Amino acid sequence: MPKPFRVGLAGLGTVGGGLVRLLQRRREDLATRAGREIVIVAASALSRSEFGAGLEQAAFFDNPATLAASGEIDVFVEAMGGADGPAYAAARAALSRGLPLATSNKAMIAAHGLELAAIAESRGTTLAFEAAVAGGIPVLKTLREGLVGNAVHRVSGILNGTCNYILTRMESDGLPFDVCLAEAQKLGYAEADPTFDIGGFDTAHKIAILASLAFGAKIDADAVSIEGIANITLADIAAADELGYRIKLLGVAERTAKGVEQRVHPTMVAKSEPLAQTMGVLNAVTIDGDAIGSLTLVGPGAGGDATASAIAADICDIARGDVALAFGRPVAALDDVERVPAQRHEGGYYARLAVVDRPGALATIAKRMGERDISLEAVMQKRGSKSAPGGAIVPVVMITHATTETSIREALSLAVADGVVKDTPQVIRIERN
Amino acid sequence: MPKPFRVGLAGLGTVGGGLVRLLQRRREDLATRAGREIVIVAASALSRSEFGAGLEQAAFFDNPATLAASGEIDVFVEAMGGADGPAYAAARAALSRGLPLATSNKAMIAAHGLELAAIAESRGTTLAFEAAVAGGIPVLKTLREGLVGNAVHRVSGILNGTCNYILTRMESDGLPFDVCLAEAQKLGYAEADPTFDIGGFDTAHKIAILASLAFGAKIDADAVSIEGIANITLADIAAADELGYRIKLLGVAERTAKGVEQRVHPTMVAKSEPLAQTMGVLNAVTIDGDAIGSLTLVGPGAGGDATASAIAADICDIARGDVALAFGRPVAALDDVERVPAQRHEGGYYARLAVVDRPGALATIAKRMGERDISLEAVMQKRGSKSAPGGAIVPVVMITHATTETSIREALSLAVADGVVKDTPQVIRIERN
Repeated sequence: MPKPFRVGLAGLGTVGGGLVRLLQRRREDLATRAGREIVIVAASALSRSEFGAGLEQAAFFDNPATLAASGEIDVFVEAMGGADGPAYAAARAALSRGLPLATSNKAMIAAHGLELAAIAESRGTTLAFEAAVAGGIPVLKTLREGLVGNAVHRVSGILNGTCNYILTRMESDGLPFDVCLAEAQKLGYAEADPTFDIGGFDTAHKIAILASLAFGAKIDADAVSIEGIANITLADIAAADELGYRIKLLGVAERTAKGVEQRVHPTMVAKSEPLAQTMGVLNAVTIDGDAIGSLTLVGPGAGGDATASAIAADICDIARGDVALAFGRPVAALDDVERVPAQRHEGGYYARLAVVDRPGALATIAKRMGERDISLEAVMQKRGSKSAPGGAIVPVVMITHATTETSIREALSLAVADGVVKDTPQVIRIERN
Repeated sequence: MPKPFRVGLAGLGTVGGGLVRLLQRRREDLATRAGREIVIVAASALSRSEFGAGLEQAAFFDNPATLAASGEIDVFVEAMGGADGPAYAAARAALSRGLPLATSNKAMIAAHGLELAAIAESRGTTLAFEAAVAGGIPVLKTLREGLVGNAVHRVSGILNGTCNYILTRMESDGLPFDVCLAEAQKLGYAEADPTFDIGGFDTAHKIAILASLAFGAKIDADAVSIEGIANITLADIAAADELGYRIKLLGVAERTAKGVEQRVHPTMVAKSEPLAQTMGVLNAVTIDGDAIGSLTLVGPGAGGDATASAIAADICDIARGDVALAFGRPVAALDDVERVPAQRHEGGYYARLAVVDRPGALATIAKRMGERDISLEAVMQKRGSKSAPGGAIVPVVMITHATTETSIREALSLAVADGVVKDTPQVIRIERN
């Protein structure tokens, strides 16, 4: 058997620690499959005392960039995180000297993926980042290799387990958002500052990366339109259920006649869709292509073991000599695709309104909708009004046929100005496949 | 750009025709992704008149083995089908001279996959067969590469769209098996002789291939225990629904303490499982591994375009120089794993019995169960008996806790011999994850 394949690992947290254990546990089988033993020969951490089982033979580095520049490794694994700073410096150092890089760092790839891929390409080496999107689900390999024969026109997914956990709990137990968020924090599913997850920013990084692989487009994470789940109420969840939908935070990348749309928002998904059936902390991605129709992958989106599984796959590919292009195409062939603002997104919408309980109120709203060519598929008005300052109000849910976000928001603003709708209307997109 | 990558294609039916169109449609993007143009330069068919659009420049061969032996191609694609005969001869001819082979032929791989992989390995070339299992779902790549870091302990799936279509129709429209089968035949989902599909044999080929990739075991298609769906009645479908299950024809490969189980049978799957939610002609595969927990892939299992998508991915991998091992490990490293007969399968069972309507009948059955240490989780007896020769009978459904197939079948045979159960009891396994 050839010489061992030497791994240098930066970061010994949940992901890095998971990788150390995985490579130890699977040592024999991985050697059979990669054609050579895979051994962690060096690692970086704040102190050597962080080295646990499996790292007894590993050289200690306090600086990841020094590790990356060391001549004694065959692949550099970055599991530290952070778009910039030490992770980025070390990644550049590794690739610049022609050393393959496997990383789980979605923020870094979303921000610097193109530049890193270009360095890798110019040095004939590999930039691999399967672990950066959807944890243990091999969705990048699927897009890059498995579905290479397809013109993909849409990728949509549940890419943040924290949000999906909260939405699942709200639905299954009828608990309000705040309570579910607090519970997610207690269980370690959500950070003390949960903004990055529940605000949709984590999903935005991932959908920007997926869009690039799916459409051969340059990553443009800044062009993602982002809306989080903090405003979703139990009333929305109940209305969705009644209408045959489930509310999910989706990342959606879509090739339209006008360009590529990239958006993150709470979405009404028909219960019969695989994405609607994905519950708890699981992730799921649906890829729509011309040859396959629709393919959905459902699995663990986070966690040390699942993320380590994705890094191990990247390491193994590299060890057996598969030098894939980071985005499936040469960086020079990636398009500067026009990004279409989500406000121009055409589709059906759900609107939940607090309507003033007086004759003609609904007619006024309908008129405002009609003025913007919005036709209604369904209107649900529950019996029983609620008294409020300025008169009683009744909750009304409307489902529109295809229209744009701009149109629906304008029509509702006018209805508010007309005085027939109180508070800010809740507007949620409906996705149909 | 380097010289074009030359494809020789044998078989111009649904799959071969789909591939011709796909390579034409995706010509430009595939060239970018593979680093070279992919061109069909030769094809075999009964007559040159079968050559349609996209094959104008292709050389004509009437014998696929001659095509495979031609020095003018870089990959041989076999899309003819049949375990033996011309497909097998041509496959051997191609690999023996070191030419990569991509095939959609599950019967041939199930029967001769090991031998063909050994030839490929000895010649340093590639045997690829993504299209042989689950059509457009890249499940082989996922097992071989994406989940390489996992000890997989179970693969289960809906691998035959014809059966899933029939079971879906039975449930959604309350139509009996025969009617749904006739409809599937009319729609082209089922062959005139449907035995291969509804008898479970097609699924058996596929699960034998998946077991090999999942467990690093030699393919042993003869060791698959097979039961088809022809005996499933609307009464079973209704009982399943009531109990929170859906009946699916599953292929299951499982690593147990006693060896590897490979089985195909109708199965009660909890409605919350992704496999239960896979409806119509779709396929789905769930892979359980130590690092990822559970990963499910849902997509098209058949059809010219979907199958061509899988072949195109294989061709593209080969064109860009990724020489993967057919089963993810060297043939010599594949184990002669002991196959465990399905009769020893431990799990819960569903049994639907025609019980004679007289005092003590149920007690007699319960006694027979108890003698074999079978404990019952649930018993459902519907009101209302049906008169039958020899006295009235009542339908009774029993759900058992974990037991073996041998035990439950013996207990029920004795109950039949006791005269308290009429007809042959219906026994369906329950799978729990």
